[in-house]
Amino acid sequence: MIDIESIVKNAKNAFIKTMTLDNSIKNQALFNIAKKIEQNKKRIFEANQRDVENAKTLLVEGTINQAAFERLKINEAKLRDLIKGLDDLIKLDDPVNKTIWQKELDDNLILKKISCPIGVIGVIFEARPDCFIQIASLIIKSGNCGILKGGSEAMNTNTLFSLLVDEALDETKDFPKNAISLVYSREDINKMLSYDEYINLIIPRGSNKLVKYIKENTKIPVLGHSSGICHIFTDENADFNHTLDIILDAKTQYPSACNAVETLLIHKNYPYFENLKNALIEAGVEIDENPIQWDIEYGAKKLSIKLVDSVETAIEHINKYGSGHTDAIISNNKENIEKFMNYVDSSSVFSNCSTRFSDGFRYGFGAEVGISTNKTHARGPVGLDGLTIYKYKLYGKNDTVAPYATGEKVFKHKYI
Amino acid sequence: MIDIESIVKNAKNAFIKTMTLDNSIKNQALFNIAKKIEQNKKRIFEANQRDVENAKTLLVEGTINQAAFERLKINEAKLRDLIKGLDDLIKLDDPVNKTIWQKELDDNLILKKISCPIGVIGVIFEARPDCFIQIASLIIKSGNCGILKGGSEAMNTNTLFSLLVDEALDETKDFPKNAISLVYSREDINKMLSYDEYINLIIPRGSNKLVKYIKENTKIPVLGHSSGICHIFTDENADFNHTLDIILDAKTQYPSACNAVETLLIHKNYPYFENLKNALIEAGVEIDENPIQWDIEYGAKKLSIKLVDSVETAIEHINKYGSGHTDAIISNNKENIEKFMNYVDSSSVFSNCSTRFSDGFRYGFGAEVGISTNKTHARGPVGLDGLTIYKYKLYGKNDTVAPYATGEKVFKHKYI
Repeated sequence: MIDIESIVKNAKNAFIKTMTLDNSIKNQALFNIAKKIEQNKKRIFEANQRDVENAKTLLVEGTINQAAFERLKINEAKLRDLIKGLDDLIKLDDPVNKTIWQKELDDNLILKKISCPIGVIGVIFEARPDCFIQIASLIIKSGNCGILKGGSEAMNTNTLFSLLVDEALDETKDFPKNAISLVYSREDINKMLSYDEYINLIIPRGSNKLVKYIKENTKIPVLGHSSGICHIFTDENADFNHTLDIILDAKTQYPSACNAVETLLIHKNYPYFENLKNALIEAGVEIDENPIQWDIEYGAKKLSIKLVDSVETAIEHINKYGSGHTDAIISNNKENIEKFMNYVDSSSVFSNCSTRFSDGFRYGFGAEVGISTNKTHARGPVGLDGLTIYKYKLYGKNDTVAPYATGEKVFKHKYI
Repeated sequence: MIDIESIVKNAKNAFIKTMTLDNSIKNQALFNIAKKIEQNKKRIFEANQRDVENAKTLLVEGTINQAAFERLKINEAKLRDLIKGLDDLIKLDDPVNKTIWQKELDDNLILKKISCPIGVIGVIFEARPDCFIQIASLIIKSGNCGILKGGSEAMNTNTLFSLLVDEALDETKDFPKNAISLVYSREDINKMLSYDEYINLIIPRGSNKLVKYIKENTKIPVLGHSSGICHIFTDENADFNHTLDIILDAKTQYPSACNAVETLLIHKNYPYFENLKNALIEAGVEIDENPIQWDIEYGAKKLSIKLVDSVETAIEHINKYGSGHTDAIISNNKENIEKFMNYVDSSSVFSNCSTRFSDGFRYGFGAEVGISTNKTHARGPVGLDGLTIYKYKLYGKNDTVAPYATGEKVFKHKYI
């Protein structure tokens, strides 16, 4: 029986220490985690094998699907990627304690806006157990504390990863205890959601249903993406080959990704409409020109297609049916491109490239904690920056507001 | 009977237009609002007089208190401040469409992070009707749309302000309709809170109870401050006169402000403890050295006082009982100052100055939509920046992710 209250309170106490940790200590912690993974490959594979064996039954029963089953597996390549990811994070600048700006309010009265970590972050993720290491390392590098809930199918792997992280942090000089915890069950989530005084942010990485459930059951701010209804609009002057390349990449390179395209909007005067349709069908993409609704996330090699009158109609359709995730235009008309990029109200808007670029690694963030379709705090792929906030530091020399209130003194408000 | 659904949906439609408005159009709108106020002073005073007359009954009944009654009144000075505030906002840079950074993901594949408005913002404010103009103008300048709910005591004044804003926006070329709306009742709030698909942010400016109620009854992100339990820690080496000046300013200059000090923590070796206490009492400040709890927001000329062993004990007390609003240290010891500024987990941390500086005007933001004790999105005094978010724009030249996935191509990730 896990005592969630203790975990949550301990995390909050640990935060007072992690929030001011030197970058060198945080990097040492990440280095130690990489070393632990390297040294314990055999144990990791064994633990993972137990999860995979158990999951075979779940697969037969239909409790999990083939894709989830595949994501559960940890192999040499995945561990190599994890270690590479940790190395990348070590190389990134400390996101914390950066001066965003400073200004003189008056002589000897200096206001500084300084980046800092958020606090205790709860992350709920699905079957893929390598997530545990990725998320823990982002939380460590950003000076936060984390309470992570992995998929129950990956319990053996997650438990071992959690143990290895504990050991690595224990062996890191001056790194506080209880910064990263693993919890297990649905009930643990429900308890977590009630600790809004201790947990500052919840990041659900999972189905629509999960995100919705969490938003409905907590006062804690939630960072997540609802769904990935991504569009590509093909303008009337778009080239045929490039259009086909981009759409095939956006739909077939990894159809179950949230940044895969779901709806094609094609200008009614596009001359290659039939050719495009045939080429897509030939590539194994199912086409629906009369979908029951326009906000379907197929997650499979299937596309809704609609003819539209103009770039304006395309924008209107996207703002109405899209999920604010990633939308692209293929066009040679610069004016239409700018219109699209400005008026489509999505976290990522692209011109002449695949929607699949919408990703923290591809954006150069080192890693991502998820993709946000929120309109506040962090939007789009969320890396280290999205795990920080700021505080104001005001350095005075025995200053009072009274003389400014009476007009005896006047603020300078000069950036320095 | 107000149709909240129409108001909310119309605001969302208006946002697609306000989000890309030129700064010149937004400034013209602010100029027109200032002009309307200037031209309609007499009507404003008349409307306000009706509210004041009605409020006299409420005051006698005890429905509102004297402070709320005073805040209701609009006089020449308040209108002058409003017009000055509009002028200041006009002079500020457009917070929208700023390039936060841009980088080459690869040749001819340019990623830009661009500031943009959030969307539809619901603001619930208390008796002070000048708030309507201040909040509306911040929302206009930041390219958002707003649904504002004022105090029912100020209904006549708010209704006239809303009418004048409507007229000013109507007379602004290319400014969309329905960008700013006023709603009236508690029931309107409850309806608003259910439109999480249309409203992107709720800002309650009012009592603790109101903020709590709103957080419990909506899935919309809420930006607000819980309470203002501000502390001043007086270190052992602090000078007597400066300490007294700062504390008097922080407690008595405007005792009901949320940034007024509520608790003094005094180093046990501070030699002037008794002198300080006597001087405060002489200045009419009531002292409680044995309060029933340490998180009381007096909002009056009253202070809790506690002796502490060290700066570390002070920090611990503040992180335990504070509300993360504003906390200050008075000290000549640089090491203790830095320790305090780094380890106190509050939105504003001050050294050797009054907590009352914690304010959007004093920070040079032109105006503030409120002070946030949130740990995400915006913290401390919130001005125009807190009403913006960002979007990613990716400009490609027919790029697909496949060659990066296979390793055929490698990202550059170079800031430009």
